[in-house]
Amino acid sequence: MKKIYMDHMAANPVHPEVLDAMMPYFNDNFANPLSLYEPGIKAREAIENARASTAELINAKPQEIIFTSSGAESNNFALKGIALAMRNKGMHIIVSKIEHHSILNSARFLEKEGFTVTYLPVDNNGLVSPESVRKAITDKTILISIIHASPEIGTIQSVAEIGKIAKEKGIIFHTDAVGSVGNIPVDVQTLNADLITFSAHQFYGPKGAAAIYISQGTRIVPLIYGGIQEGGRRAGTENVPAIVGMGKAAEITKRDMQKRIDHVTPLRDSIISNALKIDNLLLTGHPEQRLPGHASFVVEYIEGEAMLLMLAIKGIYSASGSACSSKALKSSPVLISIGVPVHLAQGSVVFSLGEGTTDEDINYFNETFPQIISRLREISPYAKGWEGTEDSTCIAKK
Amino acid sequence: MKKIYMDHMAANPVHPEVLDAMMPYFNDNFANPLSLYEPGIKAREAIENARASTAELINAKPQEIIFTSSGAESNNFALKGIALAMRNKGMHIIVSKIEHHSILNSARFLEKEGFTVTYLPVDNNGLVSPESVRKAITDKTILISIIHASPEIGTIQSVAEIGKIAKEKGIIFHTDAVGSVGNIPVDVQTLNADLITFSAHQFYGPKGAAAIYISQGTRIVPLIYGGIQEGGRRAGTENVPAIVGMGKAAEITKRDMQKRIDHVTPLRDSIISNALKIDNLLLTGHPEQRLPGHASFVVEYIEGEAMLLMLAIKGIYSASGSACSSKALKSSPVLISIGVPVHLAQGSVVFSLGEGTTDEDINYFNETFPQIISRLREISPYAKGWEGTEDSTCIAKK
Repeated sequence: MKKIYMDHMAANPVHPEVLDAMMPYFNDNFANPLSLYEPGIKAREAIENARASTAELINAKPQEIIFTSSGAESNNFALKGIALAMRNKGMHIIVSKIEHHSILNSARFLEKEGFTVTYLPVDNNGLVSPESVRKAITDKTILISIIHASPEIGTIQSVAEIGKIAKEKGIIFHTDAVGSVGNIPVDVQTLNADLITFSAHQFYGPKGAAAIYISQGTRIVPLIYGGIQEGGRRAGTENVPAIVGMGKAAEITKRDMQKRIDHVTPLRDSIISNALKIDNLLLTGHPEQRLPGHASFVVEYIEGEAMLLMLAIKGIYSASGSACSSKALKSSPVLISIGVPVHLAQGSVVFSLGEGTTDEDINYFNETFPQIISRLREISPYAKGWEGTEDSTCIAKK
Repeated sequence: MKKIYMDHMAANPVHPEVLDAMMPYFNDNFANPLSLYEPGIKAREAIENARASTAELINAKPQEIIFTSSGAESNNFALKGIALAMRNKGMHIIVSKIEHHSILNSARFLEKEGFTVTYLPVDNNGLVSPESVRKAITDKTILISIIHASPEIGTIQSVAEIGKIAKEKGIIFHTDAVGSVGNIPVDVQTLNADLITFSAHQFYGPKGAAAIYISQGTRIVPLIYGGIQEGGRRAGTENVPAIVGMGKAAEITKRDMQKRIDHVTPLRDSIISNALKIDNLLLTGHPEQRLPGHASFVVEYIEGEAMLLMLAIKGIYSASGSACSSKALKSSPVLISIGVPVHLAQGSVVFSLGEGTTDEDINYFNETFPQIISRLREISPYAKGWEGTEDSTCIAKK
């Protein structure tokens, strides 16, 4: 049977060239990069080369890149590290309501530590209004963190505008760009961000490799204390193969990005225009200002999980939103934030495309998806009239 | 030329069986383990199998193992996570003076946050006296953290005894067992520890894979907030290949540990007995209660770095202590703590052996090492009388 992977926001295969680049560092050159002998020096050089390529992907300086183990780690580092470094100046932080859980839960942690957090609303397309950011700023505001591109609804925020406001006011600006770096051009020179989180596995690099851009001169308290790795700002023996992989993936992505965008955009448009022919189905997120390979919908009268399972039976792998909302709990707070009613938010589905997605895949999908919706509606007890129930939210289990 | 790797405490090659086990998860099964479709479920199963093997290595229950990205991360998680979870009970923490920098610098961070930290001295063999732990306990003590085996001096602490005291007093006990797990048997049932840090690359697993054992019922605040991964206690997309590798390495290590110990112990003994024939050379750490593959010395009238470079020229790769003291700065606080005078602490060298170390390697080493010492002493301006200078300490660059 056909297997069509349409969940590239959740994970990506490691590019063959990336894996080739990583291989020597598992065995042939396994030395600790802090060692003084030749293999250690070579491992150190490999890391610094990777740092240069990673920096180049976002037009940063190499010394502005700190390698971490995941986007979640980078986001925790950004929020808590800036909060602790700047708390003498003030204890107010601004985020949006549609941030990733690693931001929202870090923000909730900081609230327990005495910080005040403003959670900005978004419009029906998922956009934070730069004016709302400006209005939320007080003389105690030390940090603004707004997600660049939402993995759930694909909306790309006007971060450069928000960053400009932050800069005017002298406030540190962080953007969680896990969903955007590698998928669309991101340039630190125009983004006006002081800190940027991004992750290698979004652009065919390995899991376990991520980074945070920290603009020169930005003070931050480490999340992981220890040795002198990463300039003393992130301790732990460097994951050399993963870092080398991230560097290679960045290099390939810089080369291939436009080709990838040109490849997935018409496929995504075909999905969207075909899906919108289905009754009681809505596109979520911004119709234009969205990730090129990202199509997301809510389908009335249907449970997202049933839809995912039926799609999987037909060989189509997709998600109902973030990993959290896929597996853990019910209505996504992102969908509630953009004004999707609870009963519709249950029927959420996200299709994200990659360089391996083919025309044939999309033809098969466009044929199959409406059939699945019809079939599910036939057997749905809700299809004749939905009784909305509790407004559950997606919070990490403690 | 001969290349003899004698720095197994710093890094190890990935075991070929481990790499084989990891390979399918870079490409063939790259799915996100939280996904609901079959490849995601398989990735989830692979993680749970790895968790079971990893637990088995230390005789824990699978649900007591949390995967992290490094020993440093686990140590930061333990100290800060317990401190935050227990601060309502008290704000006093006990550590030893010979902890790893990830413990010491986390402790210093907690001091800035209002905690009080007792840094326990060690004896000339590097042992913390369990009685000194008992005496340091106050009614505000919430956490004791003592390193199990020192990577710098090889001394294995009497952690079970210390843990027993902690248990009697109802205080949480953590041990940084990065240096011991995989090198000597570690059993959570007899160690009396509530939390144990360990790292895969110490036992031929991949870099980027580590864990923390957290005994059932122990409350801890996450270091990395976000999604529901690792039961909500450590967020971030799981590094599936690395976790699978750690599980495989644990399985192999459980099988081969005694063989490895029997292999390295006589080689280490040969190094020590031969080296001790050199004038003005001292063994550091405990003469018996030490890691089986670990030999460490201080050599009078010689700079450690010069010794490492000369050894490397002869193809022998070794360290002068921890990664920090190797590259960053001068006298190791561990050596100062065991009473080594500053001028001797400069001449520190650590040889750590592994399953690939051969009799031939050790014969070559035993022949070469005294020659290098002689040669360096011939050219040393200090050899005729040392003038001790400043008492620098090894602190991570900020």
